[in-house]
Amino acid sequence: MDIATIVGIVLGFIVITSAIVTGGGWQMFIHLPSLAITIGGMLCATLIHFSLPQFLGIFSVVKKTIVTKIPPQSQLIQKMVNYAAVNRRDGALALEQEIGNVDDLFFVKGLQMLVDGQDPEEIRELMSMEIQHLQDRHSTGKKILEFMGAAAPAFGMIGTLIGLVQMLRNLESPESIGAGMAVALITTFYGALTANLIFIPLAGKLGLYSKAEATAMEMIAEGICAIARGENPTAVREKMQAFVSQSRREEVKATI
Amino acid sequence: MDIATIVGIVLGFIVITSAIVTGGGWQMFIHLPSLAITIGGMLCATLIHFSLPQFLGIFSVVKKTIVTKIPPQSQLIQKMVNYAAVNRRDGALALEQEIGNVDDLFFVKGLQMLVDGQDPEEIRELMSMEIQHLQDRHSTGKKILEFMGAAAPAFGMIGTLIGLVQMLRNLESPESIGAGMAVALITTFYGALTANLIFIPLAGKLGLYSKAEATAMEMIAEGICAIARGENPTAVREKMQAFVSQSRREEVKATI
Amino acid sequence: MDIATIVGIVLGFIVITSAIVTGGGWQMFIHLPSLAITIGGMLCATLIHFSLPQFLGIFSVVKKTIVTKIPPQSQLIQKMVNYAAVNRRDGALALEQEIGNVDDLFFVKGLQMLVDGQDPEEIRELMSMEIQHLQDRHSTGKKILEFMGAAAPAFGMIGTLIGLVQMLRNLESPESIGAGMAVALITTFYGALTANLIFIPLAGKLGLYSKAEATAMEMIAEGICAIARGENPTAVREKMQAFVSQSRREEVKATI
Amino acid sequence: MDIATIVGIVLGFIVITSAIVTGGGWQMFIHLPSLAITIGGMLCATLIHFSLPQFLGIFSVVKKTIVTKIPPQSQLIQKMVNYAAVNRRDGALALEQEIGNVDDLFFVKGLQMLVDGQDPEEIRELMSMEIQHLQDRHSTGKKILEFMGAAAPAFGMIGTLIGLVQMLRNLESPESIGAGMAVALITTFYGALTANLIFIPLAGKLGLYSKAEATAMEMIAEGICAIARGENPTAVREKMQAFVSQSRREEVKATI
Amino acid sequence: MDIATIVGIVLGFIVITSAIVTGGGWQMFIHLPSLAITIGGMLCATLIHFSLPQFLGIFSVVKKTIVTKIPPQSQLIQKMVNYAAVNRRDGALALEQEIGNVDDLFFVKGLQMLVDGQDPEEIRELMSMEIQHLQDRHSTGKKILEFMGAAAPAFGMIGTLIGLVQMLRNLESPESIGAGMAVALITTFYGALTANLIFIPLAGKLGLYSKAEATAMEMIAEGICAIARGENPTAVREKMQAFVSQSRREEVKATI
Repeated sequence: MDIATIVGIVLGFIVITSAIVTGGGWQMFIHLPSLAITIGGMLCATLIHFSLPQFLGIFSVVKKTIVTKIPPQSQLIQKMVNYAAVNRRDGALALEQEIGNVDDLFFVKGLQMLVDGQDPEEIRELMSMEIQHLQDRHSTGKKILEFMGAAAPAFGMIGTLIGLVQMLRNLESPESIGAGMAVALITTFYGALTANLIFIPLAGKLGLYSKAEATAMEMIAEGICAIARGENPTAVREKMQAFVSQSRREEVKATI
Repeated sequence: MDIATIVGIVLGFIVITSAIVTGGGWQMFIHLPSLAITIGGMLCATLIHFSLPQFLGIFSVVKKTIVTKIPPQSQLIQKMVNYAAVNRRDGALALEQEIGNVDDLFFVKGLQMLVDGQDPEEIRELMSMEIQHLQDRHSTGKKILEFMGAAAPAFGMIGTLIGLVQMLRNLESPESIGAGMAVALITTFYGALTANLIFIPLAGKLGLYSKAEATAMEMIAEGICAIARGENPTAVREKMQAFVSQSRREEVKATI
Repeated sequence: MDIATIVGIVLGFIVITSAIVTGGGWQMFIHLPSLAITIGGMLCATLIHFSLPQFLGIFSVVKKTIVTKIPPQSQLIQKMVNYAAVNRRDGALALEQEIGNVDDLFFVKGLQMLVDGQDPEEIRELMSMEIQHLQDRHSTGKKILEFMGAAAPAFGMIGTLIGLVQMLRNLESPESIGAGMAVALITTFYGALTANLIFIPLAGKLGLYSKAEATAMEMIAEGICAIARGENPTAVREKMQAFVSQSRREEVKATI
Repeated sequence: MDIATIVGIVLGFIVITSAIVTGGGWQMFIHLPSLAITIGGMLCATLIHFSLPQFLGIFSVVKKTIVTKIPPQSQLIQKMVNYAAVNRRDGALALEQEIGNVDDLFFVKGLQMLVDGQDPEEIRELMSMEIQHLQDRHSTGKKILEFMGAAAPAFGMIGTLIGLVQMLRNLESPESIGAGMAVALITTFYGALTANLIFIPLAGKLGLYSKAEATAMEMIAEGICAIARGENPTAVREKMQAFVSQSRREEVKATI
Repeated sequence: MDIATIVGIVLGFIVITSAIVTGGGWQMFIHLPSLAITIGGMLCATLIHFSLPQFLGIFSVVKKTIVTKIPPQSQLIQKMVNYAAVNRRDGALALEQEIGNVDDLFFVKGLQMLVDGQDPEEIRELMSMEIQHLQDRHSTGKKILEFMGAAAPAFGMIGTLIGLVQMLRNLESPESIGAGMAVALITTFYGALTANLIFIPLAGKLGLYSKAEATAMEMIAEGICAIARGENPTAVREKMQAFVSQSRREEVKATI
């Protein structure tokens, strides 16, 4: 679970909310029609831009970003080294009972192909295609969040324009100018806040997360293929460590 | 038919319209001279940027985006597998009667070349060139919509500048300041709304749609060529499934 | 002649002018000092950015964009097919009398090399270098127009800042505030209008036009080389049609 | 130590502070709630965008940028030439005692591999991977600073919107309008100042610094490999000088 | 000497100055504290972004842009043709006395290597490295000017924010509002003017100039190598003319 995302969003709202409350008149900042224009308009534009399945899929992608735990590299390397030892000692079939201990579906599929005795080249190609598909799905998710981050301030500005025109309509009652203008600015506030505190940072997080997950999958693919080629545990460990920065190699060192 | 586009545009206008109506004074938001400056200026700039045939072609491209239905991948794979079986059993000539059942002109042309016994390499090259031409046409359409999305707010701002100058001319009648400024802001409102609710999202949709159509055409070309090389239905199915993400392969599985 | 450019500019000015005239006080929109700041400043910045010959060359490039007529592809293909027939029947020397009927200098040079019996590879290389040079010249033209499109609004804003400071200097005479501010906004109006109605769309047109001219030159080079290699008219026609989209092939079909 | 960074930041704050103090009312520019919105909001968005370790790592990266001293090229070349002479005269083992005189860990690792008699190709590959990892770490640091430079003005604007709405709430007390608006603008001031004086320039510096460090590491790798291949001091010097511009070659000339 | 740069800057300041003077109150536009904030802040940010030597080097790079005269291509071609003739007639050593007649250091170094009888491949490699180094130095210069062009308006805006806050502090004396606001706007004016009239166009000029100088150096390298390979004057002329567009070849034609 990515604690930074949760902490950032919660802290961010606390910072903004306390600034609003200490300034007084927080009731003014809750204005449902303004929220409808900004968020509603943004969602409609997103719906036009993307297809319905892409639009609906974004929520699961975002949820996965916060909830999923990418396995630590040290654990992955240790597992691969163990599997390589088993494979050398007892053959690939002996790995069948290990499949039940693995949660990650991608890892399971790789092990299954290994047990089935498929060709290393073939395993490599199939696993690369999977990684590619995942990257594509995540990149669509990132594009949707980036579009939302651009559309929210735009519809905030549209809402403010509507509010300004309505306020200017009856300038003769000057006491209402301030209130009218304050309401007009609320949509811009909503647009800027949601874009900068939610959509833009989440799109960035999705990009980093997608890169980290791809590296983990790449490590699994590399390890499975090395085992399929019958390499010994030491060689497998060296292959896996190539993905880790020099300074962290001691920390992730697998026992053979 | 792409329901998301229609729903998004309709919902978007409902959201904006209800915000305008509940705020009162909706008559102010309908101002034909302002519409003429924003939309007229934007169309003139588009006409200068592009050639007349490109400019006129955009409407058919947009219409095609909303109306055309890309065939589902499962159906495409099933058809190819059937054709491969017919080709192996009765020869390519037996596929001639299938041509009548196919709507897509690109698919028809591929089948015709198959029946004519053309060389697989030649079929591949001709079909790739067709896909390239379609991508070029769609990319011009996307560029026009993107330019419209940039030009509309620009001419909205130009209209607002005109309105402001005209309003500032007679500041001595203060009661007209509000009305004059409201009218001046209407062009910016029109520009921002059309750009963010129509042109920019439609350009994005066109990009995604063009990618999906290219993938479908790529699948047809790959299948036709595999059949032309006399591959068996199972091999054809494997080739076609390479275009589908692992998780959806069961769903699109063709019966042989 | 590119009618769309002319029509777009003329219509654009009609749209803007009628909006100004119907709003009243059109005299206010003609303000020579404001024009001097916006256009003068923009031209000076362009002069600093580019060299004198590049700066002076832009007018001829723009003029060429509007006036030059790229030969229709069908006509080009027909000509090449005819030349191929003449070449096969009477030899390359017989093409010498055709040179007088060709206007395009690039085409003339290609034919001359053909008649001189130069090597096809050599012709290809020389003609490709010419196409490259033309693209470079057009790309500089596009860059100048794009820079003008960015500099005009910038100097419009600079003019407005000057006007605002001058107006704020004597706020004690409130009746002049409106007029001063109106004059200040005129430079921004000039900058936005010239950039969005002239410079930015013309830069785009130049890009599209340059692409179309390069394609026509590429077709000529391809055809001349095919003839130089002594290919028959049918083969030459096939080579030329590869540049045309499938749907338009019937339309451009040359008679042999 | 990079004196320019320190001097720039100190001078920048002196310039801004003296402008504030000479204008009077400097107390107004110190407003803790405004600082909390701008910096707090920006930090929260950064926390959402990046992971916790990346977020915490930025401080050490920034510190390293200011403090670390990249060794001068002349000194590096002289050292390599000396090592090459020792290596030719007494063998690689004789270099072991030199390791203690080297501070840079990357250099030490290279020398150690040299003394261990590893294959030049292997040394090259391992050192290249190290350089790659360093570049990746620095590029993440640059991305974080760039994001901060974009988020700070955004949260400054959000703070100003909050302040404006609160001020417009009670327009009936006109004497408070000025003060309220001044406070509202302070967040925008904080955002613009921190972004343009700190985050954006530091991100640029990090990019230049990372390029310089990579060049130094590349020089070390090149030199170590040349020595490992048993090249003579003159050849090693020539290889090293290839990284230096012609005009500075005399200045960095190593004695052999 | 690049007359366009000088003319552009001088004319630009005349245009802006006359607009200021004819509008009256030019004294208001000279405000040293505002200049200190805008230019001082921009210089500090530039100092943070770049290293001290890069920062100090920019003035010489800019000066070189205005003063240096790239030799006309026709003259360069003529010289190379002459040298080729001398080389063929009297041998490379006879070129030694020509070195004194050449100003350009890069050209001198090339001739020296030619006279020294170095290998053509070696000459090529050394001269290419020199060209690369020059491009790198110019590209840093361009980046500094581009950064200045972005930082100047940013610090202009920061200065305006400071001025606005100070003005809003004492709204109770309304007669000072106008003057205060005018002063606040001066920094934005300074930032926009220096960026758009100096930094941004000069960065562009540096890019074009760097490209032209690289082409001239490329021509020198190509010519020297051809002579080193003992090619005859006609072959050398053909090689050199390949750098010139077809339409200008007659104009630059060298006599042999």
